[in-house]
Amino acid sequence: MQALELNNALHYRLDKAVPDIGAGEALIRMTLAGICATDLELVKGYAGFSGVIGHEFVGVVEAVGSKSDSVWLDKRVVGSINIGCGDCAACLGAGPEHCLQRKVLGIRGRDGAFADYLRLPVANLYQVPAGVADEEAVFTEPLAAALRVVGQLELLSVGKVAVVGPGRLGLLIAKVLALAGYDVEVLGRSETSLALPAQWGLRTGLTRSVPDNSYHFVVDASGQSGGFAEALRLTRPRGIVVQKSTFSAAEAVDLGKLVVGELTIMGSRCGPFDAALALLEQGVLPLRSMVDGRYRLIDGMAALRHAGQAGVRKILLQP
Amino acid sequence: MQALELNNALHYRLDKAVPDIGAGEALIRMTLAGICATDLELVKGYAGFSGVIGHEFVGVVEAVGSKSDSVWLDKRVVGSINIGCGDCAACLGAGPEHCLQRKVLGIRGRDGAFADYLRLPVANLYQVPAGVADEEAVFTEPLAAALRVVGQLELLSVGKVAVVGPGRLGLLIAKVLALAGYDVEVLGRSETSLALPAQWGLRTGLTRSVPDNSYHFVVDASGQSGGFAEALRLTRPRGIVVQKSTFSAAEAVDLGKLVVGELTIMGSRCGPFDAALALLEQGVLPLRSMVDGRYRLIDGMAALRHAGQAGVRKILLQP
Repeated sequence: MQALELNNALHYRLDKAVPDIGAGEALIRMTLAGICATDLELVKGYAGFSGVIGHEFVGVVEAVGSKSDSVWLDKRVVGSINIGCGDCAACLGAGPEHCLQRKVLGIRGRDGAFADYLRLPVANLYQVPAGVADEEAVFTEPLAAALRVVGQLELLSVGKVAVVGPGRLGLLIAKVLALAGYDVEVLGRSETSLALPAQWGLRTGLTRSVPDNSYHFVVDASGQSGGFAEALRLTRPRGIVVQKSTFSAAEAVDLGKLVVGELTIMGSRCGPFDAALALLEQGVLPLRSMVDGRYRLIDGMAALRHAGQAGVRKILLQP
Repeated sequence: MQALELNNALHYRLDKAVPDIGAGEALIRMTLAGICATDLELVKGYAGFSGVIGHEFVGVVEAVGSKSDSVWLDKRVVGSINIGCGDCAACLGAGPEHCLQRKVLGIRGRDGAFADYLRLPVANLYQVPAGVADEEAVFTEPLAAALRVVGQLELLSVGKVAVVGPGRLGLLIAKVLALAGYDVEVLGRSETSLALPAQWGLRTGLTRSVPDNSYHFVVDASGQSGGFAEALRLTRPRGIVVQKSTFSAAEAVDLGKLVVGELTIMGSRCGPFDAALALLEQGVLPLRSMVDGRYRLIDGMAALRHAGQAGVRKILLQP
């Protein structure tokens, strides 16, 4: 089968074997996949992953490893990406995304979705509702990650929120926060980057124009240490920064304000697929406007280069 | 009067004018003062402060600026160190320590306590109970800062806590957490640094010997980026790091685990003086064993050099 495989460098292969599936697993034929910042980081060598990359996908179940799972056959599915050991404290509590022995689809110890076929435990699968097109369903994973922020702020008395970074993930986070009733401002470094957020009906502003200590709640989805530093600057004393995106440690960030301002910084990662699919079914997110390109797997190298360009949001891949 | 004054470099002066006091203020004759890590940082140029340094003190009120405050005359006092504008949202809410216009005794815009006399608003004063000696009362400010950690953990379901850094502040934090009923382990880089914590009845360990993800709650009181990195390493996914001490941004810390482990990092600064004095009155803290030296103001330069040596905890100053 075709696959985009990372092995020091990224290669397009035609001769990759279709994955074998075991008990409790499903073989999924990929119909559409999305390129995310993590994929670009993996190609740069982050996390030292070797194998097929890709973890945002929609596909169709073509085989199952256990007869009792045959209800899944021919179903259109998306899938959560963490595969835990199943019986540690994390798996039984916080969830498989925090299992220390976890494998992560296309990221850690498990071939991913930029291929004709992938495998996942049936327990990770979610059926895509009939009214949700592949072009929307492919956003389930990043949308779930965006909804995680809503969940983390739920117990707090939040009114106004700033989202630093109007990119792929920042835009989704801002929109789901706005839909949840928060007064959201999307902040970016250039007017160009703020055009689509404005088109989505979101209030926008240039990060550098916002005075220090303007917000009690700030989400950093910039993916850059400079954005994180700006998030700290914008946050009021005793305020909360939700740190959504990772960045390399190469550039030091002054954490003095963390202590002096008694800020709280909350890391935020994966989110609920069921809630994401329910939101997609409502059809309130203009997701197609986020797609800047669509490529076939055979042109995957060009697709990744395109995804890495400044200002580009979502690039999709199909077999 | 005598004073240790910072003006690019630190100088001992004999000719500093006794402070003038205004309405609502008190003139305090310093009887004992403590050197803290912040003082050492200020001398290195942190925060660009010019003036008399020192903010941990005990003294006697010799004059007041308003007749209605004459009840304070001759009282033995300690004092909280933040002087807010008095009518911003921070002053009316979180407290003067988060006022953006605040002055801070011996740290920001206000001469401090390493002098024969200092001035503070009467509103910042706390009378020292008769049973508490000067040698204990001088610990009120750092003890209050330690108690702030107890307050921050109060609403959470905390059992076991690790405190990284067995120095001046780490030792106080560990002890007040233990007194509050938590199961505390004090972690340090050397056996030598753990001798006093053990003598105080605290469980101790070498930081490097503790496996990754061992604690749900970790307090970093190391004052070093290396200690902060260790605190992140020791904290379980979805765990909480209380960041107590600042450090310079010169050394980058990898914040990847913040997001991947969905950690929460809480900055922590000043604490309640009344609770600190009540604890001192109980006499349960063997504070005198933390004192490594006592100097007169005229020997202040030597005192600060001593305080800056590795493994030294508290150095006191007297007129």
